[in-house]
Amino acid sequence: MPSSIKNIFKKGLNISISGSLWIESGTERFLGPGPVELLERISKTGSINQAAKQMGMSYQKAWRIVNTLNTQTAKPVVIVQTGGEKGGGSTISDEAKQLIKYHGQLRERFTAFLKKETIKLKK
Amino acid sequence: MPSSIKNIFKKGLNISISGSLWIESGTERFLGPGPVELLERISKTGSINQAAKQMGMSYQKAWRIVNTLNTQTAKPVVIVQTGGEKGGGSTISDEAKQLIKYHGQLRERFTAFLKKETIKLKK
Repeated sequence: MPSSIKNIFKKGLNISISGSLWIESGTERFLGPGPVELLERISKTGSINQAAKQMGMSYQKAWRIVNTLNTQTAKPVVIVQTGGEKGGGSTISDEAKQLIKYHGQLRERFTAFLKKETIKLKK
Repeated sequence: MPSSIKNIFKKGLNISISGSLWIESGTERFLGPGPVELLERISKTGSINQAAKQMGMSYQKAWRIVNTLNTQTAKPVVIVQTGGEKGGGSTISDEAKQLIKYHGQLRERFTAFLKKETIKLKK
């Protein structure tokens, strides 16, 4: 058997290890890169509508994600100001900011894992 | 800010970190759990058809995966015996066995990563 995995593949194939990561409850995914990016953009724009637009996401989908997040957290992470669904502005809670920070650090650790495995693969 | 990520979520939600992993070339995924399981089952059954059946996969799809793998590897990893696509048996190469072993070990390391992150999350 050859000692290198890389050599099993055709020369010139730029192989790497990639993957995706999310937080789940039971078997349901609920905090992946999408919802986290949405939280970040709501924080920056002060608007679910604007955040959705920037992500090329329908307002309905963004609202669904916000509702889901708010029912999964002890306190709502997105605070919708008076004016209701289409009016008013929205802010995110300190806990939401903490989640964003945690998610970024988690992704950094995952990226490091993938990099290490890719190096191993190419050895 | 609370110090625990777990406490941001509702009590009783059994949260964990989960994810998926694959080998890719450029941006194309090409060796995930599916193809590896197919290789294993071809090895055990000596038949692409049988392997596909066991996985609830169409013969066409299995054949497509095999063809793709064989074009991505320096030497074919699935050796189709004379008798052609529908007849004859199939075996896998030593390199395919090495790939299966490597993939299993890679997944073990990934599982350990996810476990570690889940413990951190729940702290």
